[in-house]
Amino acid sequence: MPVGYSELAELLSVDGVRLASVAAGIRYRDRDDLVLMELAENSQCAAVFTRNAFCAAPVLVARQHLSRQAPRFLLINSGNANAGTGETGIEDARQSCAALAGKAGCSAEQVLPFSTGVIGERLPVDRVEAVFDKALAGLSSDGWRRAAHAIMTTDTLAKGVSKTVEIAGTTITMTGIAKGAGMIRPDMATMLAYVACDASVEAVALQQCLDQSVQRSFNRITVDGDTSTNDACVLVATGASGSPLIDAAHAGYPAFCKAVTDVCERLAQLLLRDAEGATKFVTVRIESGRNAAECLQLAYTVAHSPLVKTALFASDPNWGRILAAVGRAGIDGLDINRIRIFLGDVCIVRDGGKADDYRERDGQDVMQREEILIRIQLGRGDAIEQIWTCDLSDEYVRINAEYRS
Amino acid sequence: MPVGYSELAELLSVDGVRLASVAAGIRYRDRDDLVLMELAENSQCAAVFTRNAFCAAPVLVARQHLSRQAPRFLLINSGNANAGTGETGIEDARQSCAALAGKAGCSAEQVLPFSTGVIGERLPVDRVEAVFDKALAGLSSDGWRRAAHAIMTTDTLAKGVSKTVEIAGTTITMTGIAKGAGMIRPDMATMLAYVACDASVEAVALQQCLDQSVQRSFNRITVDGDTSTNDACVLVATGASGSPLIDAAHAGYPAFCKAVTDVCERLAQLLLRDAEGATKFVTVRIESGRNAAECLQLAYTVAHSPLVKTALFASDPNWGRILAAVGRAGIDGLDINRIRIFLGDVCIVRDGGKADDYRERDGQDVMQREEILIRIQLGRGDAIEQIWTCDLSDEYVRINAEYRS
Repeated sequence: MPVGYSELAELLSVDGVRLASVAAGIRYRDRDDLVLMELAENSQCAAVFTRNAFCAAPVLVARQHLSRQAPRFLLINSGNANAGTGETGIEDARQSCAALAGKAGCSAEQVLPFSTGVIGERLPVDRVEAVFDKALAGLSSDGWRRAAHAIMTTDTLAKGVSKTVEIAGTTITMTGIAKGAGMIRPDMATMLAYVACDASVEAVALQQCLDQSVQRSFNRITVDGDTSTNDACVLVATGASGSPLIDAAHAGYPAFCKAVTDVCERLAQLLLRDAEGATKFVTVRIESGRNAAECLQLAYTVAHSPLVKTALFASDPNWGRILAAVGRAGIDGLDINRIRIFLGDVCIVRDGGKADDYRERDGQDVMQREEILIRIQLGRGDAIEQIWTCDLSDEYVRINAEYRS
Repeated sequence: MPVGYSELAELLSVDGVRLASVAAGIRYRDRDDLVLMELAENSQCAAVFTRNAFCAAPVLVARQHLSRQAPRFLLINSGNANAGTGETGIEDARQSCAALAGKAGCSAEQVLPFSTGVIGERLPVDRVEAVFDKALAGLSSDGWRRAAHAIMTTDTLAKGVSKTVEIAGTTITMTGIAKGAGMIRPDMATMLAYVACDASVEAVALQQCLDQSVQRSFNRITVDGDTSTNDACVLVATGASGSPLIDAAHAGYPAFCKAVTDVCERLAQLLLRDAEGATKFVTVRIESGRNAAECLQLAYTVAHSPLVKTALFASDPNWGRILAAVGRAGIDGLDINRIRIFLGDVCIVRDGGKADDYRERDGQDVMQREEILIRIQLGRGDAIEQIWTCDLSDEYVRINAEYRS
């Protein structure tokens, strides 16, 4: 069961975007597994892709297409990642785009392909192409909810958020959907996210906004440090709201970026709340560090420690494990006597060891909650960074050991 | 059950070393939990300690004592790590040394303290001191086997090895014992190892030999990346064999170093075979890398990937997870088309994807074994490095979630 999250919120239509979800039978039976997202002409589109050296065929093709023309269609399938498929996989992705373009009356390069699912099996292009007519006929501006379900693989709940924001006198509507049961399944091609709005945004400013937002959202969550061959996040600005063109110098740009970051952050947290086997939603916040880099290095060391994660699962205020993780994080010239570690508001470590006034019962109270904050003060600067993670349960091992078997 | 390891080997006495193991009731009942190791006068002693910034009180004290005088006694307790105990812990460690020194007729600085066990509780110094008379009276050259048991915490089997080696016409006897159920319990203060021999070795050469041996043994095993506040490895050369003095220029020095590395490597592998919840002993070998650093970076990324580890547990030849781990290891300018990945002798990845001739059944055959080799060729240099690891089982989570509760 997802942690503190039980149903998909209401999703608002975004002028200039129409979606269709259909069942192509790629791997799953009796469920939608293909989504077509049509973008109005003159839409701007920015994207961030996985940095995994073994990136999947659709990532290579989407990146290339995006560099050449403004996209009119996003073609997304679940059930098959088209990853680890070599040259054949690239041809398959290209052919899908070309076939859709032929039917939709655009160029193949105006179609961006995305795949998520099992690695190393060929994409059944014939089954994909067989549903294009039905998908094109079914495009609708209120297709977000169904699309959020269609892109799921091992997710237990569909994920999406909407918000409106006032920019330069125009109300901008923004909706995003995402899939991924944590960042933890390279072979299930982990994370896909699509955010669209009806603002009019200049291309470079849009990409910069997405880069920054992803940094502060999807790149701040971690289940186990594994990243995928297929990760992608797309930000679309259709311009259909009639807003003035927002560029990086525009007075409304910071507010626009904040809204995008907010949507990405909420989507990222939903991914984490649905992480495989997770029973806790954990924030690791590093304060008074010298710079962002050391704060993040420390935060990830704590968040990835299997001993800290199993203690979280056990609701055990095992401060020794947190202390040991801090000690081995490789932070230069760390003065352990200046470090303070808190579970929620409870100080557990101070003056180089267990805090004098720490009582096990207080730590226990915090650890028994579903949402837990681990806060570490380094006492040597002004930098603050936080990331989100979850616990490590026997259920996680069971899911990942049994998957594919 | 340890993987491919079922009983402690015969341990040879080392001239110049006497040991005693007694039950002090520090934490455990009805078992030895304190070891005294007496070193002959003029013994040389080298040591390597944890690099964890939060290192335990005994580590601080042992390091200081060792820098001042040649040790006559190693004082080792299990059940309590004396870690996270601040100034009080340091005083407790010092007082134990002083009390022993008083009874044994040496200086406090000639005693090196070592502790392993629970973090954050005060060492019961009175109980420790209460058994000194008994321990001193019980010192014996054939006390190795009992000591190997007395230093255990969560280990399921005692760990030790002996070997003899001919150096410059003298037969050198070398015996080592170690404790640690994997590298995985900072709060159980993970790893302690003591290796002694009767060769006569110059101090600087002895330390250099230990540094190199630890690099290639204890620093090449990993269960989950967590390292401890108390790790220590000690190498003693008593000189009692009457061998000529071996220094770094001596013709017998390489053979001596090889013997020490061999003993350390065997001890390190025993630790791993007894890792919590482990069902597989896994070697990750990187070949044809540009340099050792990138080979190790890649090897650790694969060895720490929870997805690779759970696939190993499931005996699932899930090559997509290995490929994805290689892709995210952050190796500069990796050409994925030159990479080959093997499970044992079976090639699973070639030319940027699944090998054409790979059959699932072949991969399955390898994965079902208890000892598995993952071999990755980068095709861009001559460097080779290997590390050892184990799988991640639900038993690991159970042990680490329930411990302390």
